[in-house]
Amino acid sequence: MHIGLVGLGKMGGNMRTRMQRAGLTVVGYDLDPKVSDVGSLSELVEQLPSDAPKVVWVMVPHGGPTRATVEELAGLLGQGDVVVDGGNSRWTDDPIHAAMLAEKGIGFVDCGVSGGVWGLENGYALMAGGSAEDVAKVQPAFDALRPDDESGFVHAGKIGAGHFAKMVHNGIEYAMMQAYAEGYELLEKAELVENVTEVFDSWRVGTVVRSWLLDLLVKALQDDPGLSEIRGYAEDSGEGRWTVEAAIDHAVPMHAISAALFARFTSRQDESPAMQAVAAMRQQFGGHAVRATLESPDVPPAKE
Amino acid sequence: MHIGLVGLGKMGGNMRTRMQRAGLTVVGYDLDPKVSDVGSLSELVEQLPSDAPKVVWVMVPHGGPTRATVEELAGLLGQGDVVVDGGNSRWTDDPIHAAMLAEKGIGFVDCGVSGGVWGLENGYALMAGGSAEDVAKVQPAFDALRPDDESGFVHAGKIGAGHFAKMVHNGIEYAMMQAYAEGYELLEKAELVENVTEVFDSWRVGTVVRSWLLDLLVKALQDDPGLSEIRGYAEDSGEGRWTVEAAIDHAVPMHAISAALFARFTSRQDESPAMQAVAAMRQQFGGHAVRATLESPDVPPAKE
Amino acid sequence: MHIGLVGLGKMGGNMRTRMQRAGLTVVGYDLDPKVSDVGSLSELVEQLPSDAPKVVWVMVPHGGPTRATVEELAGLLGQGDVVVDGGNSRWTDDPIHAAMLAEKGIGFVDCGVSGGVWGLENGYALMAGGSAEDVAKVQPAFDALRPDDESGFVHAGKIGAGHFAKMVHNGIEYAMMQAYAEGYELLEKAELVENVTEVFDSWRVGTVVRSWLLDLLVKALQDDPGLSEIRGYAEDSGEGRWTVEAAIDHAVPMHAISAALFARFTSRQDESPAMQAVAAMRQQFGGHAVRATLESPDVPPAKE
Amino acid sequence: MHIGLVGLGKMGGNMRTRMQRAGLTVVGYDLDPKVSDVGSLSELVEQLPSDAPKVVWVMVPHGGPTRATVEELAGLLGQGDVVVDGGNSRWTDDPIHAAMLAEKGIGFVDCGVSGGVWGLENGYALMAGGSAEDVAKVQPAFDALRPDDESGFVHAGKIGAGHFAKMVHNGIEYAMMQAYAEGYELLEKAELVENVTEVFDSWRVGTVVRSWLLDLLVKALQDDPGLSEIRGYAEDSGEGRWTVEAAIDHAVPMHAISAALFARFTSRQDESPAMQAVAAMRQQFGGHAVRATLESPDVPPAKE
Repeated sequence: MHIGLVGLGKMGGNMRTRMQRAGLTVVGYDLDPKVSDVGSLSELVEQLPSDAPKVVWVMVPHGGPTRATVEELAGLLGQGDVVVDGGNSRWTDDPIHAAMLAEKGIGFVDCGVSGGVWGLENGYALMAGGSAEDVAKVQPAFDALRPDDESGFVHAGKIGAGHFAKMVHNGIEYAMMQAYAEGYELLEKAELVENVTEVFDSWRVGTVVRSWLLDLLVKALQDDPGLSEIRGYAEDSGEGRWTVEAAIDHAVPMHAISAALFARFTSRQDESPAMQAVAAMRQQFGGHAVRATLESPDVPPAKE
Repeated sequence: MHIGLVGLGKMGGNMRTRMQRAGLTVVGYDLDPKVSDVGSLSELVEQLPSDAPKVVWVMVPHGGPTRATVEELAGLLGQGDVVVDGGNSRWTDDPIHAAMLAEKGIGFVDCGVSGGVWGLENGYALMAGGSAEDVAKVQPAFDALRPDDESGFVHAGKIGAGHFAKMVHNGIEYAMMQAYAEGYELLEKAELVENVTEVFDSWRVGTVVRSWLLDLLVKALQDDPGLSEIRGYAEDSGEGRWTVEAAIDHAVPMHAISAALFARFTSRQDESPAMQAVAAMRQQFGGHAVRATLESPDVPPAKE
Repeated sequence: MHIGLVGLGKMGGNMRTRMQRAGLTVVGYDLDPKVSDVGSLSELVEQLPSDAPKVVWVMVPHGGPTRATVEELAGLLGQGDVVVDGGNSRWTDDPIHAAMLAEKGIGFVDCGVSGGVWGLENGYALMAGGSAEDVAKVQPAFDALRPDDESGFVHAGKIGAGHFAKMVHNGIEYAMMQAYAEGYELLEKAELVENVTEVFDSWRVGTVVRSWLLDLLVKALQDDPGLSEIRGYAEDSGEGRWTVEAAIDHAVPMHAISAALFARFTSRQDESPAMQAVAAMRQQFGGHAVRATLESPDVPPAKE
Repeated sequence: MHIGLVGLGKMGGNMRTRMQRAGLTVVGYDLDPKVSDVGSLSELVEQLPSDAPKVVWVMVPHGGPTRATVEELAGLLGQGDVVVDGGNSRWTDDPIHAAMLAEKGIGFVDCGVSGGVWGLENGYALMAGGSAEDVAKVQPAFDALRPDDESGFVHAGKIGAGHFAKMVHNGIEYAMMQAYAEGYELLEKAELVENVTEVFDSWRVGTVVRSWLLDLLVKALQDDPGLSEIRGYAEDSGEGRWTVEAAIDHAVPMHAISAALFARFTSRQDESPAMQAVAAMRQQFGGHAVRATLESPDVPPAKE
């Protein structure tokens, strides 16, 4: 199978390698000429054989870049071809992109991809959305990317279902990480357990909480005991936000995942306006200078 | 009525004044001789007339100081006298203190006191626990301290009920403050509303969210627009923690009050071990240097 | 001043009355001919004097009905006239409606209105967004609707700021109600306080938690002790959801308000798929029949 | 090695089998004579050889039963013997039990045990607290119980550290289960994904959220698609509560784990007093009959 691959960054580059290893012919395009096989999207499309449906896998940042790429491909591909959006697009973008392509008879598949830097060797987990016909045209690529044991791929449903499933996956991941993180902080603070890293390590076998994330956390703790080299600062990449928004749309109580999302927001704040307001209110009714209780610890704190 | 008052700090001092204004004779004792009427607890007890039950109101920090004071009073007072604990004691201390005093025939009343620095002029809200007989002996003091319109006092129930009611009051207060605080932060961040202070001020009349706390927040915002002079740092004085603990004891879901409590914990952290763990896990699976996404914003963040 | 008022339901009807009492001439239109002054929107517009800017206040359900009303008014009004959207529209609708009207030279003001059934007598709290010029044209109506002491009105900012401010107001309200509710449940469950209604009533004066919502809760508890006649079922009217969505947009941690929103979602569920999943996982690792621990209380529950 | 084992229920019985398979001689005692090897605790102690320190492993419900067993063993064992508490005791009980035994020169080890019904075949994860000397005396039993690859055991620290570590493990587990559960509910409600079970199954390989709990959830979904046979009702076995209490003691923000705990509380409520209070407040300010918005959906809900 020949496949076009747009975006050869960390993820796309590894995916190209894995597909090539599986025997696929990959024509890659990237803004960076050092890694790109061709000079333009139109050149990429031209290099794909015309005796079969052309499949172009888009692996660029979601939002504007993906939109622009899909638009350009709508002008370059034709009846029966398929575009796969393997990026982190919001599922609500998928029907829009599908409609743009459908006007030209081009199919569309959205595909959530999980695996990070480990995917090259272990294979990627893939969640696809779209028609059975379109998915079938991409199947050789899915089979190349997925783990070798044929696991890790699901045709989740119609257009949008792939990105939706991946989004929920990430929402779950946020709360799982928060779970380990809160437990870690308690073990560290309580100082009853002498070697927190060893305790986490012992949990890797036989316990209810064993998981790949736990393996990673243990590795991090072994590399940097006490995590002294890492700031408690966590970005969020969009899917966590969208998961909570989708929960709100469907009236799903989502206490834990939203808590994990908000904790990331807090981790990036130098100052919290909300807590400034709390401090201000306490000052008003307690009659204490702000933080007076710190400076003069003998004075009982403001009564509430 | 004569009353002994132990502890003449910010709260106790004002309460002495308010009781004196109401015509009570107050014998005050404090470690600080500059404000104390007597040199010792035993001198305080001696100065109370012996032809009526002696009432001693304890207004010292909860925990050790209150325990020590009650113990000493158990040795000084006698049959029919009453000790009132008006401090912030945990309700679970009350039966213990009551039992210590009951051995000598001394009654006990626990009393939650709300009002802060405003109580001197406006009166204090009082929640009492204990037997009807003991409460009756203290009633003149309650009537002196409560607001002039005879509101603001309740005999909440048996021993411990007063502090329990006050504790729940404070738990509610935590979440109310958090409610305003979160709304404040959103208004500030969204930058759609031009004058956040004026909006809060306009809410003081006619809206569903009008309250005394809102009045205080508006005052703080008017004094210091943008709260630029206040750090987002909030202590907690015990009752919030006990409220969540009591909720756990009784299987009461307490999402909002616990969220407010945890936000205070977070406000006091220079670094969050939990978020260090989250950052460490993200680094492990994403293969990115920690915070690399900040330094090189063109690079898409780690895929999760 | 003459004003057109579209929507004469519970809110609109009372607002008409309050404006009439203040001396305004109100031409009201409603789908229900029994309360409507005119037979159509066009008739309403015709009845407004042509020697001054015509002001039409729209008070219909947000979403489709408001959109349709604004569209029709765009075809009926002209240069210099003003449409006020006093309904519960999402702030993101406001620029859309403003643009639709601006094409015809018609101004637009969005206005958040608080006050419920109490507004008729007490006045409404009003938060307006739009240009100073447009707001000025509506000012006589604002002054009629607001409380008599000239409080309760704010020009919050540009278009959308009024609804945004009202939305945040409602988000705060959600968490305040949740705060009282969690405290109420704890007092009820702990059974240490003998008369929960009296405790809440005592808090109405002198405490930090005094508020109008507390007054209402006390009234409800006095009318129906134990709230035995009320199901624990709470709708949400949109603003709570939008508040959390806006918080996510601006990376504002919103633990308490989201907790209150999710609690309402939960209150409306007959069954919780999430908790079914938790029960299923516990069954799998614990090897217990689901709910076996209830039926045979002597057996220790599944070890986790 | 000979070992005494008190409590031969689901956990204890399997542990006896696993220790016997590893060559240990187990003397088991249970209230149920059908499974008990001896008729009393004293008989159990007698049957252990006197030429080596006697080790008695206690595996009974925490609280009263464990306390009573330890008390009785304190009278039966002697200098140099060791009692292991392998049950779900709160870590705060451990120093008390250790002190009771230390009076007689008897050692104490607390041991958190994870593994559920799978432990018999897979081995148990063990977290021990106590002195190195006491732990060494029990090591053959630990080695018999742990997985065959020598993983899954940790000497976590001094007395209490074992139960504390196990407790935190369970707290983490609560939030992990809640994470999957919230994601499951969203996938079910959104109805975009056609086969939710297949999506979860696909996540078992290659994704960030892969774990043993995920394996179990997939098994449950495959056995009972839609979980139609399981009520959304979840007990909590103590450790979740204690984890949050310990977090409060150490000022650790614990939004996600507490959310999971509270969700279990909610799952067991037939009616929510808190949400009754919310409904009552909404009725008061909105002037609507409670739930009127349901019965007459054309009427806009109460404005807040």
